[in-house]
Amino acid sequence: MSEVSTLELTQGAGPESTGISARITPDNTMEVLSQQEVARLVDRGNEQVYETFRRCALAALNTGAETDNTQLVLEQFKNFSIDVVTQERGIKLELHNAPANAFVDGEIVQGIKEHVFSALRDIIYVNNELLEKCDADLNTSEGITNGVFHILRNAGLLRTQRTPNIIVCWGGHSINEVEYEYSKEVGYQMGLRGLDICTGCGPGAMKGPMKGATFGHAKQRVQGRYIGITEPGIIAAESPNPIVNQLIIMPDIEKRLEAFVRAGHGIVVFPGGAGTAEEILYILGILMLPENKDIPFPLIFTGPPTAAAYFEQIDEFIGLTLGAEAQKLYEIVVDNPILVAQKMRDAMQRVTDYRRATHDAYYFNWVVRIDDDQQHPFEPTHAKMAALSLHKQQPPHKLASNLRKAFSGIVDGNVKANGIKSVAENGPYLISGDVEIIEPLEKLLRSFVEQKRMKIPTTEYEPCYRIV
Amino acid sequence: MSEVSTLELTQGAGPESTGISARITPDNTMEVLSQQEVARLVDRGNEQVYETFRRCALAALNTGAETDNTQLVLEQFKNFSIDVVTQERGIKLELHNAPANAFVDGEIVQGIKEHVFSALRDIIYVNNELLEKCDADLNTSEGITNGVFHILRNAGLLRTQRTPNIIVCWGGHSINEVEYEYSKEVGYQMGLRGLDICTGCGPGAMKGPMKGATFGHAKQRVQGRYIGITEPGIIAAESPNPIVNQLIIMPDIEKRLEAFVRAGHGIVVFPGGAGTAEEILYILGILMLPENKDIPFPLIFTGPPTAAAYFEQIDEFIGLTLGAEAQKLYEIVVDNPILVAQKMRDAMQRVTDYRRATHDAYYFNWVVRIDDDQQHPFEPTHAKMAALSLHKQQPPHKLASNLRKAFSGIVDGNVKANGIKSVAENGPYLISGDVEIIEPLEKLLRSFVEQKRMKIPTTEYEPCYRIV
Amino acid sequence: MSEVSTLELTQGAGPESTGISARITPDNTMEVLSQQEVARLVDRGNEQVYETFRRCALAALNTGAETDNTQLVLEQFKNFSIDVVTQERGIKLELHNAPANAFVDGEIVQGIKEHVFSALRDIIYVNNELLEKCDADLNTSEGITNGVFHILRNAGLLRTQRTPNIIVCWGGHSINEVEYEYSKEVGYQMGLRGLDICTGCGPGAMKGPMKGATFGHAKQRVQGRYIGITEPGIIAAESPNPIVNQLIIMPDIEKRLEAFVRAGHGIVVFPGGAGTAEEILYILGILMLPENKDIPFPLIFTGPPTAAAYFEQIDEFIGLTLGAEAQKLYEIVVDNPILVAQKMRDAMQRVTDYRRATHDAYYFNWVVRIDDDQQHPFEPTHAKMAALSLHKQQPPHKLASNLRKAFSGIVDGNVKANGIKSVAENGPYLISGDVEIIEPLEKLLRSFVEQKRMKIPTTEYEPCYRIV
Amino acid sequence: MSEVSTLELTQGAGPESTGISARITPDNTMEVLSQQEVARLVDRGNEQVYETFRRCALAALNTGAETDNTQLVLEQFKNFSIDVVTQERGIKLELHNAPANAFVDGEIVQGIKEHVFSALRDIIYVNNELLEKCDADLNTSEGITNGVFHILRNAGLLRTQRTPNIIVCWGGHSINEVEYEYSKEVGYQMGLRGLDICTGCGPGAMKGPMKGATFGHAKQRVQGRYIGITEPGIIAAESPNPIVNQLIIMPDIEKRLEAFVRAGHGIVVFPGGAGTAEEILYILGILMLPENKDIPFPLIFTGPPTAAAYFEQIDEFIGLTLGAEAQKLYEIVVDNPILVAQKMRDAMQRVTDYRRATHDAYYFNWVVRIDDDQQHPFEPTHAKMAALSLHKQQPPHKLASNLRKAFSGIVDGNVKANGIKSVAENGPYLISGDVEIIEPLEKLLRSFVEQKRMKIPTTEYEPCYRIV
Repeated sequence: MSEVSTLELTQGAGPESTGISARITPDNTMEVLSQQEVARLVDRGNEQVYETFRRCALAALNTGAETDNTQLVLEQFKNFSIDVVTQERGIKLELHNAPANAFVDGEIVQGIKEHVFSALRDIIYVNNELLEKCDADLNTSEGITNGVFHILRNAGLLRTQRTPNIIVCWGGHSINEVEYEYSKEVGYQMGLRGLDICTGCGPGAMKGPMKGATFGHAKQRVQGRYIGITEPGIIAAESPNPIVNQLIIMPDIEKRLEAFVRAGHGIVVFPGGAGTAEEILYILGILMLPENKDIPFPLIFTGPPTAAAYFEQIDEFIGLTLGAEAQKLYEIVVDNPILVAQKMRDAMQRVTDYRRATHDAYYFNWVVRIDDDQQHPFEPTHAKMAALSLHKQQPPHKLASNLRKAFSGIVDGNVKANGIKSVAENGPYLISGDVEIIEPLEKLLRSFVEQKRMKIPTTEYEPCYRIV
Repeated sequence: MSEVSTLELTQGAGPESTGISARITPDNTMEVLSQQEVARLVDRGNEQVYETFRRCALAALNTGAETDNTQLVLEQFKNFSIDVVTQERGIKLELHNAPANAFVDGEIVQGIKEHVFSALRDIIYVNNELLEKCDADLNTSEGITNGVFHILRNAGLLRTQRTPNIIVCWGGHSINEVEYEYSKEVGYQMGLRGLDICTGCGPGAMKGPMKGATFGHAKQRVQGRYIGITEPGIIAAESPNPIVNQLIIMPDIEKRLEAFVRAGHGIVVFPGGAGTAEEILYILGILMLPENKDIPFPLIFTGPPTAAAYFEQIDEFIGLTLGAEAQKLYEIVVDNPILVAQKMRDAMQRVTDYRRATHDAYYFNWVVRIDDDQQHPFEPTHAKMAALSLHKQQPPHKLASNLRKAFSGIVDGNVKANGIKSVAENGPYLISGDVEIIEPLEKLLRSFVEQKRMKIPTTEYEPCYRIV
Repeated sequence: MSEVSTLELTQGAGPESTGISARITPDNTMEVLSQQEVARLVDRGNEQVYETFRRCALAALNTGAETDNTQLVLEQFKNFSIDVVTQERGIKLELHNAPANAFVDGEIVQGIKEHVFSALRDIIYVNNELLEKCDADLNTSEGITNGVFHILRNAGLLRTQRTPNIIVCWGGHSINEVEYEYSKEVGYQMGLRGLDICTGCGPGAMKGPMKGATFGHAKQRVQGRYIGITEPGIIAAESPNPIVNQLIIMPDIEKRLEAFVRAGHGIVVFPGGAGTAEEILYILGILMLPENKDIPFPLIFTGPPTAAAYFEQIDEFIGLTLGAEAQKLYEIVVDNPILVAQKMRDAMQRVTDYRRATHDAYYFNWVVRIDDDQQHPFEPTHAKMAALSLHKQQPPHKLASNLRKAFSGIVDGNVKANGIKSVAENGPYLISGDVEIIEPLEKLLRSFVEQKRMKIPTTEYEPCYRIV
Repeated sequence: MSEVSTLELTQGAGPESTGISARITPDNTMEVLSQQEVARLVDRGNEQVYETFRRCALAALNTGAETDNTQLVLEQFKNFSIDVVTQERGIKLELHNAPANAFVDGEIVQGIKEHVFSALRDIIYVNNELLEKCDADLNTSEGITNGVFHILRNAGLLRTQRTPNIIVCWGGHSINEVEYEYSKEVGYQMGLRGLDICTGCGPGAMKGPMKGATFGHAKQRVQGRYIGITEPGIIAAESPNPIVNQLIIMPDIEKRLEAFVRAGHGIVVFPGGAGTAEEILYILGILMLPENKDIPFPLIFTGPPTAAAYFEQIDEFIGLTLGAEAQKLYEIVVDNPILVAQKMRDAMQRVTDYRRATHDAYYFNWVVRIDDDQQHPFEPTHAKMAALSLHKQQPPHKLASNLRKAFSGIVDGNVKANGIKSVAENGPYLISGDVEIIEPLEKLLRSFVEQKRMKIPTTEYEPCYRIV
């Protein structure tokens, strides 16, 4: 609970704190491992993999902290270490100098413990085992989709008994109080209607719907699912709330986006900044593919009255760049949480019918086509950002894909460790293109800055990009 | 969620609304009934019992409404009716003109449905069946305790597998935002430590700890118990929140208080008004009995810094009237939710040890002695209020008991239908006694009024009593 | 397993053995008791009730013994005693000189322990609590039916989730190996079809179907119910097999028969002796009532080829005494277990439909009418046996009822302690009536003796009756 | 139930029957599959794998048939086919001309259905997926052990919550009634003591202990595990009883033996023939390895009095060939099921202590060393059989291993399709060696023949070997 974090921090570790050391035991996951599997887990040979795991575990332990500056977090807990140790009945994790936040009277909070083991499972285990899997050849489109499937299945996310009810909620981590309360209310109304929530973890629009749904589910006496799908680059800045009861760390941002689309059954977008724009362009790029035109995929943009102007800007930007066809793919609902929830609930029936008609699994959308270009990791560099094809001489879904990359780069420069470093060293990313694209883009970005949607506001926002 | 209620009400029924009609089926409770039992349920012969049931069911359905004026609620839904109908596999309830709040898209919220059936169980069923039980002779002290036991057992509250962990939270329904947030935080910290919450239902200090504990339990992946114990006279003014997953309606206020003491394992008192003072005096009256002096019974008064003065007043009042011995029975903790939770958790071990040593049940405190005088219903009239023995020529526990009655009368005049009517007709209750009692009392009551703790503030509070 | 008993007995207690002493704790039943309820349980004031409990507990503990001579058992374990002791979390039972058969390496077998607590529940608890219940006035027909309901509900037998599938199996405790194997096979085929088994406990036709069904259920991965309904007079001679996972001890033979009819959904009758004849006449007496003529109640007599003659005799006897209408109420199936199981499974659908149409409970047949005369205990004495109305100048269902009493008396004289004693002292019961009744009766009884169906053959059978 | 099979067969399919066609759906196993995994399952490209699957599925469906002649079964159901079909929520299996035994009124028996899907899982799925696993390189000792682990884990056999309690029961499929009853009694006594049973599937000593344990577990209200571990070559001749609630089909006889040793916690050997001798020599070969000398591994040979001579012969043979050290590794208990069960239960504590001390898993014995030579498949040919090293100029554990191969060949020639064919074409296997080995061997084999332990006796046994 956001109200709680200040109090928690009084208990927690200041920068000078030495943190807590503890041994923690897994509950269900990864219980029965072969000796080789354990050996590979214990092995610290691959420094990069280990460091990724250490950072993700730290993020899980550092829950409740109110910052999105990855660098700060990593420095504050630079002495934190985590090791896999072999034990008679399997394995344990040994923590040193862990954030005190994660503990209650010396005992780790159960939900946080589960997240740390999710990190172990998704970073080290998946890394080891996926490399052995011929099916998951991450160089091909089909292989990537298979990789996404295997990671989600291994995480226990795919359940056959369920009918479609997973609503993905996107939106900014840095939204204001009114928008936050609104996102809670939407979550509450969806929870009352038996819908489960999936977000990207972290604060703001990613926490609100889960908190709201918690009460909706409690009132309906339903065991809700609160699925958080993140990736190593962003998790430190968007620490998973322990309400998340299924945490999955995908290898990179593109697989994370694909996981949202294949495991979710509908998407609600709350106000946000560059990351949210990236997500909107990603899903539009998919739904605009001719092969996908018959697939029911409910997509709603919503917010309180104060956010009406924001969605008008987004809508206008989409109209100007991708055209009227793209605008038909979503609905905008202002100030009506009940309507949003009702529309999503109704859409679930259409999704179910379509899956049945196409013999597609309820728990994984095999049918939806994702362009190769949207699947491979886009690692922004100054050169790549400068070279983006932002013009109308390409199919609209390709333009959507390229616009997505532009926003992806901005997110990178805003909150990710590497991006921040690179911008600090080389100056802002330069973005250019046709004027009919670049002008609306510049306008949209400017409004994000004005509305303080780029980062959790601590100091004045300094753009990591320049439109040229 | 309090944030939600306004939105809910836009969906809900205004005074002009005709309400919703529906048939609802029980889940587990009261499934297997004999033909006679069903016949008695269906029978509307006893008008008074039926009306009590109707009011309690209405209160359960009217959840989320922000008023404590019973009369208003009853008038708004005067066309509401509820009937038991016989069905092939048991019974159903037929609702007419029910508050729309209780429904989501035409279907009743599961948690609310359970509460309505709790009302059926506790009002009609218990009424019928207890009358047949020789053990529960409500004219004797032992019989009353047995009656309380039978009602709680019949409600499924008594569970042998649990070790002591039920913390009763008392406090005002009309507290300010800071106090409310504080009560949530205490609930959160108790939930993190595996403690369950029991309150009197309703808003304010009775909702905050449950909401907080919901998150604490969720983070610890614990299925929490949120027990609401109320009584027919107060339920309309303090509608149970659907988070309550065990609702019990005791026959009257004295049995409700006894239920708190026998089923709970410790008590936290938040700031409140006359009702809270009544509760404090009740538990002090019990703990001051010589027979109870060895029984561990943790009792903590707590609130945010702004409530420090409030508890000083209470403490001073207790010191002046009941003496220093009474002051030893509780602790005051200001602005430290974690400490409150830790103290309660630690005390649970002492409670467990004592129960084991005395062969007393974990789930029901048979050993604690409650004076006959505290068990029989005190039905305030002008005559009885005027005749209260408020002097020091009696054992302190007797004085506590009599002071409790004074506050009980004030609660009655403030929020209960009968009391409001009686005061409206006959003027305020007159309260008199020795000056060394009556002066501190007057001072305390005045401070309650000044701090707006008497009722949910809509208009200026007009006292239902006069100190003479 | 019958094969096992010899081996068990080598471990068990011979007549000279001092038996085993132990304390046993209940699991679920009777966990949460009030202090008064415990006090009444502990109280040995009512010697007769205590002695009944002691005998039933002994019978449960003495499982596997191959005798139906109650007297012998009681003498062998005359030092056995059992006491209720109060404990911190409820109660325990203290056993002294208990049969060693019930223990494995000093620990009581779980199934047997449950049976002993069933005896406590049904004898002492029900005895105490039923006396307080006005609903269960055992002097009226309706009150008796209510009493049966309350005992079964208190035992946890009545479950709303289930659709009709309880098949009552009647038949002799002293049947030969071929008939026993046949009864197992019928149970096996019913178990394969998801039917549950209810018998009167004890060996022979009461054990076979349960053993068979155990395998049928195991193959279908179904958790079967093996319900044993007995009564204090017969339990010692027909010790419940621990496979029985719901043991219920009804107060007397008439309530036991009513429990079969109201809780069961169909009846299969295997070959047997006087007790089986009693049961056949009881159910025919009910089904012949005009009020019951539309109620679907599947009734099948079945056995291996060697039993064909036996059922011809029964059928002939019924035809001669009760007439052709009575013969229409059952089917005889020889040597076809699959057909029996199929017929029963099919009939369950008709039973379900009828219950739904009449709004009758699935778990308790309220609709079927049982004549007052069949509900009140018939306690055979020489005078009553001599005075039975065995003639055709009465409605056939009355004649059935009176014939049932004749057989009830013979069972009494054969295996019950009181009956054996009375016959030993006063000579055989004299039975008389019209020749057109008495001749077929004599013929049938003679055939029972010849076929050794009267008692488990140890010595030559000496009739406890004389037809005059 | 053996008693049942004749009756079942009357319902079942005679040789002329066309069998039953049906579609069956999996319950839990293999629910969530990727598209590639499904594609590989559906693919019939690998004819040999498909044929193995078809045979195993047929064996599972043909349960209850009383023959061990694989050839006969395969001919009788030569029209049987089975196909994987893709379905909206996963896969189904389509059966054509399946044995009618497997169905009850047209619906497949649940336990049999599970076995058919176990075959799919273990034959096709494991075959596909194991080939991709580098860890399970079946050319190395470590890789084989890993393969065994992966197959058992994939089958859900390895459970961390359990403490050691799996007793492997070995013994002949063709034992006499007295021995069969004895094996039931041992199973019963072990079931009473909470021990689970693991056998090789099939009739005789592999069914008896499970049937007995079913009753022991039922009396103790314990959900027992009945684990059957078989392999494709033997399953047709030893059809799994549907009581088996975990069926695992290992790739070959050596991995099956390793699975027994690594997943089981103790071994009871009943009388048997060549297969049992093979198993005894296998486990002795392991326990005689110097590396294993401290590992507690309870091994008991037991049977009724009539089997005393049989075990004397075995014991004598072991003494003469492997020496007194080998004789210390087992105990012989005659005619005392309770003692066998008590010894096993006591040994479980020692096993638990040892696992804890060595940090070895409870559910998989990683520590025990198995010689490379015992892990690789021994495929008997006339040449290999003739070339076996049966002399004392080798470490005793090597001799044990070679003697095992001799018996393995004889089993092959007795009941496996290939072996029978090869012997029919080329005459009996010739076995030679040093006289001090070969003489006791011949004597032992002769006694097996005399005691009709070689095959289920239909006609006179004709040896498939000749000692030279």
